[in-house]
Amino acid sequence: MMINLNQCAEYLENKDNFLLLCHMSPDGDTVGSATALARGLVSKGKKVMVKCGDPFTNDFSFMFDGLELTEQEDYDCVVAIDVADPKLLGEELNEIYGKNIDICIDHHASNVIYAEDTLLEGDSASAAEIIYLLLKEMKVEITPVIASCLFTGVSTDTGCFRFSNTTTRTFRIASELVDAGADSYNIIQVFFETKTKTYAILERLSLESMRFYYDDRCAVICVTQDMLKRSGSDETETTKLANLPRMVEGVKVGVLVKELKDGSFKASIRTHGEIDASAIASRLGGGGHAGAAACTVNAAKNEAINLILKEVKAELDG
Amino acid sequence: MMINLNQCAEYLENKDNFLLLCHMSPDGDTVGSATALARGLVSKGKKVMVKCGDPFTNDFSFMFDGLELTEQEDYDCVVAIDVADPKLLGEELNEIYGKNIDICIDHHASNVIYAEDTLLEGDSASAAEIIYLLLKEMKVEITPVIASCLFTGVSTDTGCFRFSNTTTRTFRIASELVDAGADSYNIIQVFFETKTKTYAILERLSLESMRFYYDDRCAVICVTQDMLKRSGSDETETTKLANLPRMVEGVKVGVLVKELKDGSFKASIRTHGEIDASAIASRLGGGGHAGAAACTVNAAKNEAINLILKEVKAELDG
Repeated sequence: MMINLNQCAEYLENKDNFLLLCHMSPDGDTVGSATALARGLVSKGKKVMVKCGDPFTNDFSFMFDGLELTEQEDYDCVVAIDVADPKLLGEELNEIYGKNIDICIDHHASNVIYAEDTLLEGDSASAAEIIYLLLKEMKVEITPVIASCLFTGVSTDTGCFRFSNTTTRTFRIASELVDAGADSYNIIQVFFETKTKTYAILERLSLESMRFYYDDRCAVICVTQDMLKRSGSDETETTKLANLPRMVEGVKVGVLVKELKDGSFKASIRTHGEIDASAIASRLGGGGHAGAAACTVNAAKNEAINLILKEVKAELDG
Repeated sequence: MMINLNQCAEYLENKDNFLLLCHMSPDGDTVGSATALARGLVSKGKKVMVKCGDPFTNDFSFMFDGLELTEQEDYDCVVAIDVADPKLLGEELNEIYGKNIDICIDHHASNVIYAEDTLLEGDSASAAEIIYLLLKEMKVEITPVIASCLFTGVSTDTGCFRFSNTTTRTFRIASELVDAGADSYNIIQVFFETKTKTYAILERLSLESMRFYYDDRCAVICVTQDMLKRSGSDETETTKLANLPRMVEGVKVGVLVKELKDGSFKASIRTHGEIDASAIASRLGGGGHAGAAACTVNAAKNEAINLILKEVKAELDG
């Protein structure tokens, strides 16, 4: 059943032992939202556990500081947060809980509606915005640390207020969270103004590989396994690279071509305005959204790039 | 005299022919604030002109679209906006108007208080925040284009909400401006997510020059006149480079060393937290703030870098 904030708050208030689940490759939104809700529930005298299929990285440790988590044999309420599909819980958690999620709180329009009850706001920029409103509905006091957990979700899922999902509500909630004591400056420093040294090297190597095509309307960077090795970096750090080519003035289509371990190449395509990234990707067997899409090409490096460029050109000239 | 919002609004409402002045090297805040105020005054039936010692770049053209400016022989009210010192008007405008500024509206704590009346909020992140409150005080309707002008000021002077000057009020006003129709997404794309091709090349060359010192606590990039030439870029594009070294994890002091046309080197120093950038700069005859400072060193490249490194080390170990 689809439920609203009020129904969700009422439901949670009537349960006592909670398991909150995050998605794999945990990001600021799933962890910030889960820990904020956990703190709210604990403040109401509930017992709470938070789980994730992958380990939480150090950047998130402040979210757990002083939060009393209680591992229990049985949970009378299992809540998935920011999880659009139970597969995203990871194999193990999905096998145990995937079919028994009581409530899913999410902001992905693509949510597959797998939980008993679903609180879904497809146009919310982050799950954290929904959790904030939910905590207010539950009359939970927004402490500084809850505010910091939520601010992390609000800022990371909007690329620090730069993505098109950012709304007037996003800014208003950010304002209220800063008012409530969120450590906004330091959160932004950690999540947006810091690069690992290995990423800094990888970024430099990537920029060196940037080539321009079609009157500079297309820019391509290529990351090989050798570059990953030379930089000391790994796959987890390549995501941000995909945005670099499109940032150059005049570029309509930016492509990151990444060599995978099996020797094939994954293309991450980012476009501006009128150019449809998913049209380019789908002609090569991939898919995605209008502004961001991806596909995998099984070919040697130069051939792979040429195959992708051909489809880019078709779309640019189309 | 120092005046408040209400006094300023009343003063402006009693005048008819306005000249609004921006500072040289016009940025989003001085131009966005001036054009927003200009539009508000025009909506009240006033005649307004906007001037700046330097030309306005293309990025600001939307601020002037449909804004009726009227060059006049005499102005009964000259307002300087975001101008901390009349010298920043540029030689020509300073000579004509510098001693006859009726009102200065500014957010620089360092304002030299040169105008007849000054509306100063030293802890406001931007002049645009003050102008927004002033327009509300004057009961000016915040149209979508006024909202866009102000959003440009609010976002650019906070590094898109990343600088430590960003407050709960900043976010609240951003929210209200988006509500009023500010084209926030496109503004952020233009001012934060776009690089010129020449800058992209210069950035790559700069990153190639990055060297680490003192257990990676200091990172230095060096931009030479030759690199400017090779990239097709120029001095105006070097500002953003100064932030790059400090972004690397573990780096406490980031330095951009830039070769000037006369062969001397300017060091732009950016520090984290406990390290005082101005202490480093001042020992080399420069100055600035705790987090950002600069100095000029008259020496050959390697000698200049060594002189700077010596002072960095003193501060790191101090």
